[in-house]
Amino acid sequence: MDTKFSSAIHMLILISEAETPMSSEKIAESVGTNPSYIRKIAGLLKKAGIIESSQGRSGFALNLSADELTLYQIFCAVEGTSDIHLFDIHRNPNDQCVVGRHIQPTLTELFGELEAKALSELKQKTLKTCMDIMRDRINKEETK
Amino acid sequence: MDTKFSSAIHMLILISEAETPMSSEKIAESVGTNPSYIRKIAGLLKKAGIIESSQGRSGFALNLSADELTLYQIFCAVEGTSDIHLFDIHRNPNDQCVVGRHIQPTLTELFGELEAKALSELKQKTLKTCMDIMRDRINKEETK
Repeated sequence: MDTKFSSAIHMLILISEAETPMSSEKIAESVGTNPSYIRKIAGLLKKAGIIESSQGRSGFALNLSADELTLYQIFCAVEGTSDIHLFDIHRNPNDQCVVGRHIQPTLTELFGELEAKALSELKQKTLKTCMDIMRDRINKEETK
Repeated sequence: MDTKFSSAIHMLILISEAETPMSSEKIAESVGTNPSYIRKIAGLLKKAGIIESSQGRSGFALNLSADELTLYQIFCAVEGTSDIHLFDIHRNPNDQCVVGRHIQPTLTELFGELEAKALSELKQKTLKTCMDIMRDRINKEETK
């Protein structure tokens, strides 16, 4: 399980919504992990220019507004790659067979198109998209 | 690594293109695996109605034409699920925090939309899509 991406989204919602800057300890408490894991993710988000340390107090601030910050930017920042891996390809097809010789590049091309589409979906969605979904859920809970 | 999907595509191209029915031994030789793995995949494809055993001889035949058979059908047949898993979600967010309480259903909904789009892409592509890409590559190789 690699939950850096989902943890980063959680963390960024907290940073965006908090009235006073939140420390890595407070963030870790909400995410359900330890502060050093949060500091590691914070380091990746800082390196990508997404957050900065709040000046003069412990905590973080967003450098972009929630509707500018795409899920693609968050994904690339914490995963260190712009690749989404959808399907594995078998490793040892037989080069002596024409289908065996061409199957890997064929599937790499085909799966690559699907992966590129999934990435472009991540570019269409922002931190605000997540916060809107969450707000709807919170409103529904409150009106129950 | 789970390569049932890519192995199944390889196998179905062979079945579709072969002039005489191919046995699981012959298919395994091209895929680069053992015949029992091919028989296991063949069993899943048969159960889904995609292939049948050739009557009276050892080998398989397609029940659908290559441009009718979608990658979605192949994926569901061999993976036994119609779910694509794109991203993991952290397991222990804190219920005492409003963000922590809502993050899992929010991300499940959001990631679910992305996964549904990826599945719908698999429905747009057929075995013929793969064979066309491969044929282009073979033609390019031959004209080198």
